[in-house]
Amino acid sequence: MPYDSIKVIAFDADDTLWVNEPLFRDAEKRFCELMQDYLPSEACQERLFAVEMKNLPLYGYGIKPFVLSLIEAAITLSEGTVPLSVIQQLMDIGKEMLQAPVAVLEGIEPTLKALAPHYELVMATKGDLLDQERKLEKSGLASYFHHIEIVSDKTEAQYHKLVTQLDIRPEEFLMVGNSVKSDILPVLAIGAFAFHIPFHTTWAHEEVKEPVEHPNFQLLSNATQLKTILSQE
Amino acid sequence: MPYDSIKVIAFDADDTLWVNEPLFRDAEKRFCELMQDYLPSEACQERLFAVEMKNLPLYGYGIKPFVLSLIEAAITLSEGTVPLSVIQQLMDIGKEMLQAPVAVLEGIEPTLKALAPHYELVMATKGDLLDQERKLEKSGLASYFHHIEIVSDKTEAQYHKLVTQLDIRPEEFLMVGNSVKSDILPVLAIGAFAFHIPFHTTWAHEEVKEPVEHPNFQLLSNATQLKTILSQE
Repeated sequence: MPYDSIKVIAFDADDTLWVNEPLFRDAEKRFCELMQDYLPSEACQERLFAVEMKNLPLYGYGIKPFVLSLIEAAITLSEGTVPLSVIQQLMDIGKEMLQAPVAVLEGIEPTLKALAPHYELVMATKGDLLDQERKLEKSGLASYFHHIEIVSDKTEAQYHKLVTQLDIRPEEFLMVGNSVKSDILPVLAIGAFAFHIPFHTTWAHEEVKEPVEHPNFQLLSNATQLKTILSQE
Repeated sequence: MPYDSIKVIAFDADDTLWVNEPLFRDAEKRFCELMQDYLPSEACQERLFAVEMKNLPLYGYGIKPFVLSLIEAAITLSEGTVPLSVIQQLMDIGKEMLQAPVAVLEGIEPTLKALAPHYELVMATKGDLLDQERKLEKSGLASYFHHIEIVSDKTEAQYHKLVTQLDIRPEEFLMVGNSVKSDILPVLAIGAFAFHIPFHTTWAHEEVKEPVEHPNFQLLSNATQLKTILSQE
């Protein structure tokens, strides 16, 4: 069996275990509505994305960096004329996002349940630790995971470190996630397995256009297929 | 020897390895100067602290939560009348903090160098992962550490998890840090060792008044003493 060597399965969290990206897309939409006196929606989205990309190396990933970028963009795009009440609303949007209910994706729970007795399951995410712990708790999935791995970015070097820390060889590691850029390509590069489960919404920063072809790769349409592929039905 | 069982030494980062709290105290001072038209400095500091404490469960620890609390406090304390330029200045203070040079505390480097061949050294912090990785890199201390452990809060349960993850028994674990509340008490409670190196400035949230008395505890005046106590001079 091609996957017999796998001992640890790491799951990405946002948009792999539960819905996340739509929360950001919705917040961006609300932001651009608040900015409609200053610029049209499409230009607003582009300029906000540019602010986020500029801040990414300094702020990192997650809701708090996003809110700080919203505030910065509001001041810049309005040329310093936006009312303070808008800043307050952006802060409120951030708090709402941090407290949003967690919608677990279809098929995830039964799949984790089937895999947990046979593999060490970990959650590997580049989000914010406190926020991801809170979501894992709310999701009701915590008991299936051995532990959470938070990385500041999902690069080859970080996956190397993760595998070393788990004390396994790359061919004993499988990553499952929705981002080709973060969850698939760097994992294949270190000689591990990577299965892609696309989510309907992908952040522009995470988009990779070319299809992946690699013996250690599989494209799945949902989490339930994992059980079949790994013969754990 | 009482400390012969120790295999892993975990160091807190902020104000144990390098200067941190003064950056926050300085930012608070600048914040209250910006707020001086609305309320006197002492009241400002108290009300800011109250906003930070209210937000702590939702935002967690670190510079980004702090900046969000500064912005919220500016809006609230000015009753929605603070100029937008002040919000911009608070954002700038945050970016300055994130990019501040790292001042390694005296005695740390030679101590880590002496201990590294004999123990597994880890950095255990509740700060923000990206920010702590950046500081570790800037500090020049990265090569002494086996890995970084980020916890969302330093509780008994989190130390239990850490020890389990490190695959050691509590009596094989020593924590070194400047906060009695975060680095000492919960560590002693799980049966591990904890050495306190006080720093001259402590955040009100971390203050514990009673002196600690425990067979697994030591109060040190600086990091260099670690070498003597652990007989690694």
